[in-house]
Amino acid sequence: MPYISVQILTGVSNEQKEQVINGVTKVMEEVIGSKPESTFVVVQEVNRENWGVGGRSIQSIQQNSK
Amino acid sequence: MPYISVQILTGVSNEQKEQVINGVTKVMEEVIGSKPESTFVVVQEVNRENWGVGGRSIQSIQQNSK
Amino acid sequence: MPYISVQILTGVSNEQKEQVINGVTKVMEEVIGSKPESTFVVVQEVNRENWGVGGRSIQSIQQNSK
Amino acid sequence: MPYISVQILTGVSNEQKEQVINGVTKVMEEVIGSKPESTFVVVQEVNRENWGVGGRSIQSIQQNSK
Amino acid sequence: MPYISVQILTGVSNEQKEQVINGVTKVMEEVIGSKPESTFVVVQEVNRENWGVGGRSIQSIQQNSK
Amino acid sequence: MPYISVQILTGVSNEQKEQVINGVTKVMEEVIGSKPESTFVVVQEVNRENWGVGGRSIQSIQQNSK
Repeated sequence: MPYISVQILTGVSNEQKEQVINGVTKVMEEVIGSKPESTFVVVQEVNRENWGVGGRSIQSIQQNSK
Repeated sequence: MPYISVQILTGVSNEQKEQVINGVTKVMEEVIGSKPESTFVVVQEVNRENWGVGGRSIQSIQQNSK
Repeated sequence: MPYISVQILTGVSNEQKEQVINGVTKVMEEVIGSKPESTFVVVQEVNRENWGVGGRSIQSIQQNSK
Repeated sequence: MPYISVQILTGVSNEQKEQVINGVTKVMEEVIGSKPESTFVVVQEVNRENWGVGGRSIQSIQQNSK
Repeated sequence: MPYISVQILTGVSNEQKEQVINGVTKVMEEVIGSKPESTFVVVQEVNRENWGVGGRSIQSIQQNSK
Repeated sequence: MPYISVQILTGVSNEQKEQVINGVTKVMEEVIGSKPESTFVVVQEVNRENWGVGGRSIQSIQQNSK
């Protein structure tokens, strides 16, 4: 039954997404006994200008740190 | 008042999205009397490499079934 | 594959939730051919003081309209 | 600690996103004392054919009002 | 059109929720011209044992810092 | 930066939530190098009458299988 939404910054490879899906599904199976075949994991990639922390976007933080 | 988020795999047409929006809004109106004009339906399309089930992405599952 | 999150105000009956789940699943099946057994519908009930529109919570709007 | 997800229609500039991130973070700091450095704001842009209100997508509403 | 989901730890007052709803709605109006009457703000309160950072729940972090 | 939302049925212990938070944070650290201290994991517990699959709530499915 679990539904897991993973929001991360853009830039990860398909291989890494595969490993995130696999790893998170394993955690749910091992900790609460969820069946992998009914565990949804959805990876949402967010652009740096769309993710804010400290009141600023990651894009503007990274531009100023160059 | 309802806000409905619909996550589906990419590949549906605009016409199908229109029908999903219309159909889901009707269900809310008929079942709980929600006013369509204050019912939000947001369709989020997810790539196959970003949606996992059974610990694998849909993309890798479909590639192996060819 | 669809995952549908339905946010509504508290106060609906279990029977109404059952009908929302059933109705929304049917829309996905009829419009995009989703298999009901792999269609998740999660109903999230929100208190009136937690839902805002027009810059005010539903609770304060309803209190002032008495 | 707050995590704020802001869903809006596509078409806003990066400068506007920066201001939304900044403004929302300030509200959380001023009202509930959240530390900006542990306040996440994620802006999700939605296409007009993917956002429905009144049982129709914004795209089809806007096309018919031309 | 904006839909804003605000996730915070439990423990805030209804008055604070009202101010968050009001403040966030104002930001959207001032920055991107959103109409308050079609701006949804939903506040979701999360228990400390359900919110994790640094691999631990806030509850266990706070218990160990006593 | 990752924000992970984990939706599960009610009934898990605080200890299990702690392990889910810890396990998911480790996956993000090992696979994409995310810093645990800026990885949010939010566990949302859903009642059985609020979670639907196959067009029915888990509650009604479980009641009929007794």
